This record gives sequence, structure tokens and C-alpha cells, in this order.
Amino acid sequence: MLQGPNMNRLGKRDPSHYGTQTLVEAQQAANQRAAELDAQIEHFQSNSEGTLLDWLHERQEAADGIICNPGGLSNYGVSLRDAFAEAKRPIAIVNLSNIYKREAWRRLDIFAEIADVYIVGAGPRGYVAAVELLVKHIREIG
Amino acid sequence: MLQGPNMNRLGKRDPSHYGTQTLVEAQQAANQRAAELDAQIEHFQSNSEGTLLDWLHERQEAADGIICNPGGLSNYGVSLRDAFAEAKRPIAIVNLSNIYKREAWRRLDIFAEIADVYIVGAGPRGYVAAVELLVKHIREIG
Amino acid sequence: MLQGPNMNRLGKRDPSHYGTQTLVEAQQAANQRAAELDAQIEHFQSNSEGTLLDWLHERQEAADGIICNPGGLSNYGVSLRDAFAEAKRPIAIVNLSNIYKREAWRRLDIFAEIADVYIVGAGPRGYVAAVELLVKHIREIG
Amino acid sequence: MLQGPNMNRLGKRDPSHYGTQTLVEAQQAANQRAAELDAQIEHFQSNSEGTLLDWLHERQEAADGIICNPGGLSNYGVSLRDAFAEAKRPIAIVNLSNIYKREAWRRLDIFAEIADVYIVGAGPRGYVAAVELLVKHIREIG
Amino acid sequence: MLQGPNMNRLGKRDPSHYGTQTLVEAQQAANQRAAELDAQIEHFQSNSEGTLLDWLHERQEAADGIICNPGGLSNYGVSLRDAFAEAKRPIAIVNLSNIYKREAWRRLDIFAEIADVYIVGAGPRGYVAAVELLVKHIREIG
Amino acid sequence: MLQGPNMNRLGKRDPSHYGTQTLVEAQQAANQRAAELDAQIEHFQSNSEGTLLDWLHERQEAADGIICNPGGLSNYGVSLRDAFAEAKRPIAIVNLSNIYKREAWRRLDIFAEIADVYIVGAGPRGYVAAVELLVKHIREIG
Amino acid sequence: MLQGPNMNRLGKRDPSHYGTQTLVEAQQAANQRAAELDAQIEHFQSNSEGTLLDWLHERQEAADGIICNPGGLSNYGVSLRDAFAEAKRPIAIVNLSNIYKREAWRRLDIFAEIADVYIVGAGPRGYVAAVELLVKHIREIG
Amino acid sequence: MLQGPNMNRLGKRDPSHYGTQTLVEAQQAANQRAAELDAQIEHFQSNSEGTLLDWLHERQEAADGIICNPGGLSNYGVSLRDAFAEAKRPIAIVNLSNIYKREAWRRLDIFAEIADVYIVGAGPRGYVAAVELLVKHIREIG
Amino acid sequence: MLQGPNMNRLGKRDPSHYGTQTLVEAQQAANQRAAELDAQIEHFQSNSEGTLLDWLHERQEAADGIICNPGGLSNYGVSLRDAFAEAKRPIAIVNLSNIYKREAWRRLDIFAEIADVYIVGAGPRGYVAAVELLVKHIREIG
Amino acid sequence: MLQGPNMNRLGKRDPSHYGTQTLVEAQQAANQRAAELDAQIEHFQSNSEGTLLDWLHERQEAADGIICNPGGLSNYGVSLRDAFAEAKRPIAIVNLSNIYKREAWRRLDIFAEIADVYIVGAGPRGYVAAVELLVKHIREIG
Amino acid sequence: MLQGPNMNRLGKRDPSHYGTQTLVEAQQAANQRAAELDAQIEHFQSNSEGTLLDWLHERQEAADGIICNPGGLSNYGVSLRDAFAEAKRPIAIVNLSNIYKREAWRRLDIFAEIADVYIVGAGPRGYVAAVELLVKHIREIG
Amino acid sequence: MLQGPNMNRLGKRDPSHYGTQTLVEAQQAANQRAAELDAQIEHFQSNSEGTLLDWLHERQEAADGIICNPGGLSNYGVSLRDAFAEAKRPIAIVNLSNIYKREAWRRLDIFAEIADVYIVGAGPRGYVAAVELLVKHIREIG
Repeated sequence: MLQGPNMNRLGKRDPSHYGTQTLVEAQQAANQRAAELDAQIEHFQSNSEGTLLDWLHERQEAADGIICNPGGLSNYGVSLRDAFAEAKRPIAIVNLSNIYKREAWRRLDIFAEIADVYIVGAGPRGYVAAVELLVKHIREIG
Repeated sequence: MLQGPNMNRLGKRDPSHYGTQTLVEAQQAANQRAAELDAQIEHFQSNSEGTLLDWLHERQEAADGIICNPGGLSNYGVSLRDAFAEAKRPIAIVNLSNIYKREAWRRLDIFAEIADVYIVGAGPRGYVAAVELLVKHIREIG
Repeated sequence: MLQGPNMNRLGKRDPSHYGTQTLVEAQQAANQRAAELDAQIEHFQSNSEGTLLDWLHERQEAADGIICNPGGLSNYGVSLRDAFAEAKRPIAIVNLSNIYKREAWRRLDIFAEIADVYIVGAGPRGYVAAVELLVKHIREIG
Repeated sequence: MLQGPNMNRLGKRDPSHYGTQTLVEAQQAANQRAAELDAQIEHFQSNSEGTLLDWLHERQEAADGIICNPGGLSNYGVSLRDAFAEAKRPIAIVNLSNIYKREAWRRLDIFAEIADVYIVGAGPRGYVAAVELLVKHIREIG
Repeated sequence: MLQGPNMNRLGKRDPSHYGTQTLVEAQQAANQRAAELDAQIEHFQSNSEGTLLDWLHERQEAADGIICNPGGLSNYGVSLRDAFAEAKRPIAIVNLSNIYKREAWRRLDIFAEIADVYIVGAGPRGYVAAVELLVKHIREIG
Repeated sequence: MLQGPNMNRLGKRDPSHYGTQTLVEAQQAANQRAAELDAQIEHFQSNSEGTLLDWLHERQEAADGIICNPGGLSNYGVSLRDAFAEAKRPIAIVNLSNIYKREAWRRLDIFAEIADVYIVGAGPRGYVAAVELLVKHIREIG
Repeated sequence: MLQGPNMNRLGKRDPSHYGTQTLVEAQQAANQRAAELDAQIEHFQSNSEGTLLDWLHERQEAADGIICNPGGLSNYGVSLRDAFAEAKRPIAIVNLSNIYKREAWRRLDIFAEIADVYIVGAGPRGYVAAVELLVKHIREIG
Repeated sequence: MLQGPNMNRLGKRDPSHYGTQTLVEAQQAANQRAAELDAQIEHFQSNSEGTLLDWLHERQEAADGIICNPGGLSNYGVSLRDAFAEAKRPIAIVNLSNIYKREAWRRLDIFAEIADVYIVGAGPRGYVAAVELLVKHIREIG
Repeated sequence: MLQGPNMNRLGKRDPSHYGTQTLVEAQQAANQRAAELDAQIEHFQSNSEGTLLDWLHERQEAADGIICNPGGLSNYGVSLRDAFAEAKRPIAIVNLSNIYKREAWRRLDIFAEIADVYIVGAGPRGYVAAVELLVKHIREIG
Repeated sequence: MLQGPNMNRLGKRDPSHYGTQTLVEAQQAANQRAAELDAQIEHFQSNSEGTLLDWLHERQEAADGIICNPGGLSNYGVSLRDAFAEAKRPIAIVNLSNIYKREAWRRLDIFAEIADVYIVGAGPRGYVAAVELLVKHIREIG
Repeated sequence: MLQGPNMNRLGKRDPSHYGTQTLVEAQQAANQRAAELDAQIEHFQSNSEGTLLDWLHERQEAADGIICNPGGLSNYGVSLRDAFAEAKRPIAIVNLSNIYKREAWRRLDIFAEIADVYIVGAGPRGYVAAVELLVKHIREIG
Repeated sequence: MLQGPNMNRLGKRDPSHYGTQTLVEAQQAANQRAAELDAQIEHFQSNSEGTLLDWLHERQEAADGIICNPGGLSNYGVSLRDAFAEAKRPIAIVNLSNIYKREAWRRLDIFAEIADVYIVGAGPRGYVAAVELLVKHIREIG
């Protein structure tokens, strides 16, 4: 599970958009649902798109699927998007706030069109749902 | 849980977009997750926007939240969208296929911006996730 | 006088946009002004565009003019708009709230360009003004 | 052969756009050409998109092809369009008037891109040509 | 009641758009309806946006509401629009002809979105309706 | 009947778009339907817009109507379009493939808006239908 | 002949766009050509659109045609444009510099579409040509 | 002086747009004004952009300036436009009808931005004015 | 220092956008900073673009630079913009409120692209900063 | 004070856009004005958006305000923009060159709409003005 | 190797865009590189799209690949583009000048999307590189 | 020679777009062609735009030209683009796949307009061609 720029601030950022749960708490909740489904998640967060790419290139061979909240990269992180597409693994994209309720330019989420599962607006609980939906997707479709 | 035009064809429509589960099976899976969470769902499907509105107007007072797959109305059903906004209840919007992977004009989902929970591309399992996320949303935020 | 989708909720919908008068009260106020002008109004409301069309096709021969609040159909009800244009009778279009103050997409009112009288933002009183303006328009211009 | 909203008014609507032949006469002319080609047509008209969908869902299994004039739905009837695409049968779309000569917004005919045969501007005779072209298309290509 | 550029030509301009009543006659009709409602109107017309602003700045403190036909300024008179918004009084905007039936660029009426009452296409009688609707708006809402 | 650029390749071009019938075969099929209707067709094909114009200018006086497949000129052949409009004869435009199913830019067919009969997607059989529809159009409307 | 904002600076403004002839010299050259054609020109320049309107309203009855360089109003002077259209006299519009060679937004000249004669880029000599073309237009067509 | 596609039809085309003077008469009128100014014009017309280019390439060395009515090429003749720009001679572009009064797409005249003199809407007399303005431009500026 | 339409209302207009300082106080603060820098400012305000132009034409020869808040003209005052460009003096443009935070159409400030110094959102203090930056710009660059 | 990508090249980059002062000199000038106002500035420059974010997250608690020249990130650095918005401190954005005079795409500065003070085109002196305006803004408004 | 309109002027056209080498010299350089690679090139240039099509239709069967500089047709030569696509041979497109540095409309090169090798801005040497890249492409991929 | 994000995956990414040659092999092939031309190349790859900038700033003084494949930065790497423009050295941009055949948004390559040599679609061999074209460009033009 990759977390993009500013996601380290989760729980400290504007709570009306993102809720009050911290990133570590959200990661633990995701781990718990994964454990219930007999799966494991590796977590990584960086404010730099390049560092996210380095980590992804290194770890993608070992993964069955990818969950990502691109954070601020949602609108322009073409490099990350291309890397996801190239990884050829099922992918769940999670946006904590409902980007379709905010500024018009946020509606153009370049990651939406490569997602197998796409969850928006549900806050950190969206990670838990993504874990369940992606695991079942992988086990059924591959 | 409202189902829009053509959703009665679920499981009979193009399986590459919508999977093979029928509408009744999808409704049962949603009911089961609701039961686990101590909640109840009332189901309705119509091919006519007007009939959906009639039903909604009649039943919205009794509901704590709304789950809807607008089907073919996603791009133009302003009347349904206005009725949802006026109902002033938390709402989860579910699109079975990933509309952001298909024709460009499908990207303009007029229901996205009124959703509290928005799930796209996860197939009929998206209803189950919507039930869980919406119930928890209602109990926590109201 | 035709009332489009959701107009049956008048007085129950968001009062900041639509006021607190119910549809029946608004219809009575319109009838009263019509009576002062020695005219009569027949009323109909439906949440379904098709039902509005059926009623219009049946009654238009007997009418000297049409007053309509298309409700949610304002942005996409091309079938209703075409039927009005084909009826070849003077027409008054009434929008209770000022659609030009709301979301940008509401500005494209496809009924505006076929209206002989167009009243926006004045709430249910707009119906009364429409009655007066349309009756005088019909008597003077035909 | 499906007829969309307002097509019941054929022959009564603006003759400069649609000619003077009534819908029944146009259907009879289509039947005659079908008979010459040893084929049969079932006819249906409704002003409601939902009713058209109900009928289509019920009858499509028995049909080898579909002829449709979507009438006022040409610009926004995504539900009908999706149902046609899902029916996986050859389809002929007929517009009586030349929509490309009229208002700019009529040029966006969302049914054009799913048509196997597309006839515009030829008036009710377009139905006859559609019958011949679709029957031969079905017999040759399937 | 402010009248923008070219409105002094009322009754002399193209009668198919604007009718044959002169500006003075239209003002008198408005005065009469105001008198019936126990209200008073002060009138002003200028072909210069600057002169309209000077007059408005001077008189707005004494007014309970504003009625304006911006004339040619409808599409670009941002200074006048800003002054109206700053005056913080209920405002009725009247366009004599239906600008939505004319050239496409006339549809962008920058005064529409600041109007409390917006009347289009009803000719000089629109002023009378505006007087009634605005007076009642002021007395009810303030 | 004019054939634009690349139409000499008919039957040799991509059969998924254009079928396997050659241009001569298509012309013969058109002649046959014309003969059944007691009409005659003169044929011409050129890869050069200028040569098509020269031929049209020379022959248009003798023709009662025009059938044309503009081929590659469909999107930019304004000179040919203007010449057709100036010829003041009924015109049928035929596109063999459905241009509305292909690249977005092909949707802008500048000949569509001058057509009296417009047939798209029906392959070379479209010429036969065009002959019948145009002849009947000429005989009925002139 | 009306001259819009900044035209009093002619000969003093950027000579690469407007040449070095002063406004008075340009008016004299126009008068001379008019005299050769047995016609007379009345001149007026103002930096204020309102003042131009006042003058036009007063003098238009006495004129057979109008020549105007709208200057800075070319892109937004809708009031002046409407007044010209209402004057119902032949009109020649002159732009000294070639606005189509400059910033993209200058290409939208709202006066172009009401001109009977439209001359761009020829410098002050354009007035002389406009005089000749407009006089001949008036004498031939009226 | 080059004449583009369809200009050989001058005087035979729609007189409401182009007048009744033939091309030869228009060329003679231009020659006469040229003679008064002690200049000479060579004329050429073709319906083919390629032929116009061949002629231009051959004759441009001998010319001091170019007058052209691109006819149907006004909107898409980039090759001709590039050849004019490369010829590095003053150029006058003439459009007989006012393209800014017609279809919106005609407003994009790709030749406008390379013109030293641009005359629109004045009919065949525009050639005479172009001769005078271009000759004086060449003699003064070069 | 020129002040455009409505700027006479400074301190009386909506304080959330423009602060509470009056125009005279803002001018005095600018004068004081100018005096510290051994410079002098001449002030002018008008609600009419034409009057601003008249004043500018008269005074520009005597000035080393221009400071202007175009007020309501920011979006359409092409005449004023052209006059500034023609004055060939360094120019500072000041907008009191942050136009980029308000309605989308306010973002198109046609004066931005001619500014040597451009200050937005800083309230009346922006004039003081403009004085300092423009004086130093003039003394260093000229 | 944060400096974005390429700002380390200040004084070495194209002097027509950015002047000849180095970044260190510009920082010292800003420090000096801050000292006069009894304030202190901490400086940071990075070519990497991620590194800017790391630094900002770490230091924002200790700051009363932020001054930033986003450099190359002005058009796409959504992550940095979101971090600024989340920091909830007054912010001054400085662009050394006038981006509104350059390529059209540079006009979309995504930082403009979050700025409390926005200074463009004034070169490195813009930092000094930003210091003064921001300090006074903080002290007055907070 | 096909050369489009105006390419016969190579070496005579504006050298800042196209260099000083003539077309024959450029063809000889291409031949030489072809010979080094044991390949042969046949050359053709025409100012007429129709003539290019005639030649292509005749010769394409004998060719293993196509190199083309469409010249002025780059923006609108759909007929040539369609013929290339139909030829089903590898294709290299060469633009001598960098069209992406010039007018915005030149950026829409309709041949770019059908190229296997696309070389822009390298002047006549681009032909030599195209020969090498296309020959190797054909030999490796076919 | 700079390689942008994801280019380290060359030969491992989707071979239908990028071929099977690894980055090291592509660099060696480029070195070999450089050696034949008596030139030398220094190579660098990073997934981070900031790191690319740091390296470029450090090494640009020593280079005669730049070759770059911006990888995922092609659409948004304005900082890198600005740094290239500021380096004032000839530059070759190479895209391995034909971006004009892929998603529409990939067509906007912000590096295209600063390239002296631009090669698209030729796979890793494009680097070899870029070396030859850039070296010859530098030696001839500088």
C-alpha cells in the first residue's frame, strides 16, 4: 500500500476533508482486515514521486496487488500512473475525501482509469474496503 | 437501495463490464452484510426515472441512508440527483464497471459530487462494501 | 400548467432555494390571478417525462398557452422541449430558484430559448406573474 | 421497430421537418418492404424511456435486429443506448429530419456510434430503406 | 429603476425584439403598479456605464430595491454588476427580448447570477411584473 | 454520382470498414436500382478535389440530383461542399463505414448539414438506398 | 464616420500598427474621396462608448450610411454594435491594423458580423476605400 | 491575382452572397483601376490548390504583390497560405461575401493573419479597392 | 495613479474583499511612500472608461510611470489597456482583492499581461508596495 | 521562505526574465527588510517537490507565515499547494517574471488562488515587498 | 519517398525554418544512406494531394515502406493520411522544421498518429535518419 | 543523455510500446554511434525530477548538447523543461513509443516545443539517430 505526498499528515490535515485518524491507525485497520482475509500488506509513504517509483520498482515483483492513495499526485503524477500500468497487477485507488465535491480541477483523477477498484470519499475506512475488494478480486479474477 | 435503468439485466449484460452475478444475488449479498451490521435494506429497481422518484419520495422519510446505482442515468438523471440531494440523507453511489476506463463522456458522473461514499469498478461486490461503509458513516457522523 | 419532476415536493424541499409554499398553494394563487383575468388553468404534475408528454399531447389542442416549470428536466428534457415547440402555443417557463446562481451546469436551461415569458428566481410567486404576462401576451399577440 | 418520444405525433408535427405521413402509415410502408423481403416487424412507440426499455428487455431475445427512431432521446437517452448495445443485435437508427441542419446541439446523436445502419433526413421513407438495409445486413453478416 | 445603453430608443428599436411601447410609457406603467402597491420608483437612463454608476452610488442608500434593464451592458458591464452586488439590496433584472433565442453570445448574461427576480422576453410588461415581484420580495424577505 | 479520394480503392481497402465490393460493382448495383426506378446515373471518381469541382461545374445543369461519397474530403472539403450548396439540387451523401464509430474527429462531417438524404455505415448497399430515396425525394418534393 | 476610443491618438500611437497619419489628416483624405463621389461625411470621435451612442442616436436619421472604426471597443462594445444594427443603415467597419495578426483575443471582432464592408490592415487609407465602397453600395443596393 | 475554387462560378453562384458580376467582368474592373494607377495584373483561377501552387511558384518572382480570393480554401488551404507567406510579397486577401455573417466555422479564415490588406463583404468591388490599397502599400512601404 | 469604476467606494464596499481604508487614505499612504522615495503621484478616479482615457491622454507625457487599479474594467477594458500599452511607460497594476480566489471569470485579467509590476490581494497596502517597486524599476531599468 | 525548482540558478538564468541578482543576494535583501520590521526569515531551496514538502511539514508549526516562489512547480505542484493550504498560515506567492506575458499555459498558476499576497513581475525585489506586506498582514489580521 | 505541397521550394523557402539544402540534394543524401543499407528509394513530389494519391495507389504494392513529408497537408490532408493507413506498410513521417515551436494550430499533425517513425525539426538530415530507422524497422519487425 | 522516470525499466516494460532492449544496451548503442562521430556521451537516469535537475545544473556547463527522454515527465515536467531552455544548448528529445498513437492527453508533450531534434516512435534506435542528428546540428549551427 503506497501513500503519496502529504498523506503522512493524515489526522493532522483538515478534518472536514480527511477525518481524524492518523496514517498509522489507518494502516493498522487495513492490516487487520487483511489478516482476517489471510493476506499481508507492506506499507510505504513518501512525499516524493521519485521515491515512490524507486520503492514500487523494487517491490512490485513480490506483490499480488497494489493499493494506493496518490495524494497530491492524483492530478499530475503520470510517472507513477505509468509505473502502476506497467506493473500489471490489480490495483485499488483510494481517495479519502470526495474529490468530485471539491474544486473542478480535482475531478480529473488520472489514476481513476487504471483502477480495478476505486473508492472515493469514505475516509480512512476506504482502505479497509479496498483491502477486502482487492483481495477478493485477485482471488477470483487474478 | 435503488437500482436504475438496465440494472434488472445484471448478470445478463456484458460480463466483461458487469460480472455474472444477477441482481437478486447481489441484493442478497448486500442484505447479508447489512444483517451482520444489524441493519436492513429495502430494494427497488426501475427502468424509469419517474418511477424511481415516486418510490424515493414515498420511502425516504423512513430511511437512514441511500445506496444507489443510477445505471444509465449516471450521465443525465438530474431529477434523481436533485431528489437525492433534497432527501438530506447520507448516500452511497455504486458503479459496477469502471466508467473512467470507458467512453470519455461516461466520466461525467453527475451523482459523484453528491456521494458520501463512491465505489466504482468493483462489480456487484461494491454493493457489499457500500453497505458497510455507509452504515459506519451513518453511525459515526449521522 | 405543467410541473416537472420533484415539483410535488414543493414546500418540502430546501426552503433556501424554493420557499415554503406547497404546490397546491402555488396552484391556487395562480388560479386566483387567472380568475381576476377571466382565464382558467388546468394543472398537472408528474415525475416522469413520458407522462408529461402523454398529458400534453392530449390536452394541448384545448389550450391557448402553456405554463411550465420543468423541474429537474430543465437541463436534459429534450423530448418535452420538442413537444412544447411543436404545440405552437405561447409558453411561459418558470424556475422557482435562480438557476444562474447555482452550479454552472444549471445555467444551460434548454427551455429558455423556446419561452415567450421566462421568469427565474421569484419563487412560487413567479407562477402568478407568469399567468398575468402570458394571458396578456396571448390576448395581444395571439 | 421502436419509436421514441413524440413520434406518435408523426404527421401532426411540424411538416417542414418531419413530413405529413402518420406513424401508422409509416409503419405500414415498412411492413410492406419487410414482407417483400420475407421478414416481419413488431412495432412499439412510447413517450417514456423506461417503457421502451421494459419492452426491449422483454422482446429482444426474439428479434434478429432492431430499428429505432429515438425521437427526443437522441441527445440524452443513455439508458436506451446502453440497452441497445447490450442486446448485441444489428441495429438501424433512423432520424426523419436532418439533425445536422438544425440546432448545433442536435448534432451530438449518442445513438449514431452504435448504429450498423444510420439514415438521416429522408423522412418516413427512411424506415423503408432501413428495413431493406438491415435485413440484408443480417442475412449477409449476421 | 435603471435603464442601460440604447433603452432610450425603446419603441423606436426593432419592434420584433422589443415591442412598440416607448420608455416613458413603460416607466408610467411601472409607476402605476408601484402606486397600487404603495411604492415609489425613481427612474434613470444613460448610454454610459460610468454615468449609471455615478447615479447608483448617489441614490442607492435611499432605495429598498433596484430594478434594472442593463441593455447592451448585459454581456460585459462588470462594473455595473459589481456595483449592484455591493449595494446589497434586492434586485430585479429585466430583459425585454428573450436573449436566449438570439445569438449564442447573448446567453451569457452576467447580471443573471446576481438577480433576486429575473424576467426575460416579456417585453415592457416585464417591468410591471418586476415591480410587483420585487416589492413583495422586499416586504416578505427584506 | 461523385466518388471522392481513395474511393477507387473500394474493395481493396480495409474490408472491416468498407466491405469487399469494388467501386464498379457498387456503381452497377446503383445503376440497376436506378433503372428499376426509370432513372439514370452518371459516375465519376477522382482523388483530386479540383477535378471533382471541374466535373461538377460542367455537369450539374443536366442533373436532377447529386449522390456523393466525399471519401477523405468529408472533414475538410469546403470547396466541394460549397459547390454542392450552390448547385441547388437535392443531394444524398453516403459514407460507407460508420464514421461515428471511428476517431472522434471523423464525426465532424461537413457534408452532413447540406444533405437531403444521409446514409452512414451501410457499406456499398448505401448507394442503392440513396438512389431510391433521392429519386423519390426529387419526384415528390423537387 | 465614428471613431472609437484612442483613435484621437492616431499618428501618435505605435506606428508599426497604425501608421503616422493623424486623425485629422485621415478625415480629410476621406472627405476628399467623398467629394469626388459627390458625398459628404460628418466626423465624430470619443473615448466614451456612451458619448458615441448619444451622437449616433441624434444623427442617424440624417445619414445614408455609417463608417466606423470602433477602436478599443472592437471586442466588447455590444451597446455600440446593437445601436448600429438598430440604425438599419449600410455600415462599413474599418480596423487600421490587422487584428488577425495580433493577440488571439483580438480576432473576435463583434462588429465584423454586422458590416456590409469590412476593411482590415490597410491603415488610414482604409477609410478612403470604405468611403468609396460604401457610397457605391448605398447607390446600388440602398 | 489568384482566384480559388468555385470562383469561376462568380455571377452564377448565389447572388445574395456574391453579386451578379462574372469573374471576367470583375477582373476587367480590377485591370482598369490598375491601369489608372499605372500597374498591371496577371489573372489565374483554378479549382485545384495544387495548380494554384504551381502557378504561384512559377510567377511570384516577377510580381510586386499578390491579390487573392482563396474561395473555398479560406478555411483549410494551409499549403497555399504557406506559399504566400514564403513568397515574401505584400498580399491583399479579398472575400466577396461577409464570412463573419455566415456559419460560425467560416470565421476562421487562415489567410486573414497573413494579409497586408483584408477586404470582406464588399462583393467584386472589393477587388478594385484591393488593387488601389495594395499598389499604394507597395509604393510606400515596399 | 488611476482608479477605475467603483474605486470611489473603497472602504464602503464589502470589507471582506477590499478592507476598510477609504480611497483618500490609500492615496495618502501611497503619497507618503512616494515622498520617502523622492517621487510624486498625481491621482485620478472615474467610473467611466472614457474619462480615464481622456485624463491619461492628457497627462501621460508628464509621467515616468503609471499605477492603476482598473476596478471593474479588469475583465473588459480593452480601450484602457491599449492606451496603457501605447503610453510606453512602466506600469504597475494593483488589484485589492485576490481575483484568483473569486469567480472563475475574474481570473482573466486583461491588464496582467501589460504589467511590469503586478500586485494582487494585498488590499490598499498594495498601492504602497507598487509605488516602491515601480519607482525602483524606473530608476534602474527606465 | 521556500524557493522551488531552478531558483538556485537565480542570477544565472535568462536575465531578461529574472534579473541578475543571485538567490543569496535576494535572500539577504529580504532578511534586511524583515529585520527593519523586527521579523526573521528562514530560507530553503530545493529542486524536488518532495524535499520542499518534507521541510515544510517539519517547520510550519514554528512559522507565522510563508513566502514562496514555486518556480517550475507553479503550474502543476498540487502537492505543495495542498500542503500550503493545510498549513493554515498567511502566504505570499512571488513570481519573479511576469508569467502573464509569457506562454499561455503559464497563466494557470495554481498557487495564485491560495495566496494572501501575490506579487508578479517585479523581479527579486518582489521578495522584499512580500516580506513587508505579509508581516503587516499577519500583525493586522493574524 | 513522397514530398507534399511546397517541398519543391526546399532550399528556396525561409531558411530559418527549412535550411538551405535543395530537394534534390536532400533526396541524394537519402539515397546514399539507403545505398549503404542496401536499399532503394523512389522519389515523388507534387503540390496536389490528388496527384500524390494517384502515385501512391500505383506504387504502394511495390514498396516495403513509405517516407513522407506531407508539407502543407500536415494539418488537413485526411485523404493522404487514409491512403497511408490503408497501404499497410511501415511509414516514416518527416517534418523539416519543428512545427511544435510555431503557430499553435500546426501542432495538430494528423500524420503523427499513423507514423512508425516520426522525426521533427532536424531539417533535411531528418530524411537520412528516417531512411536508416525505417529500413531497420522493416527488417526487424516487418 | 538524461533518462526520466521509469526509463530504468526499459526492456522490462510493455514491449509493444518500448521494445525489449534494456537501458544499458540502448546507452551502449548510443555511445558507439557517438564514438564513430568522435563525440562522447555522459548518461544519467533518475525517477525524480529534482535529481535530474540537480545533475543537469551541475553538468550543463561542460556539455555541447543535451539528449533527453523525459519518460513520465513528458506531460508535466515544467521544471525540467525550464532548466533545458535555460541551459541554452541544442537539445534532442526522444520518445521511444509513438505518444501520438496512444491516449489523447499524451499528445501534449511540453518538451516538443523546445527541441532542436525530436524523434518519436522509433524505439531505442531513436537514441542512435538523435546522437547523429544532434552532433551534426552542433557542428554546423552551434
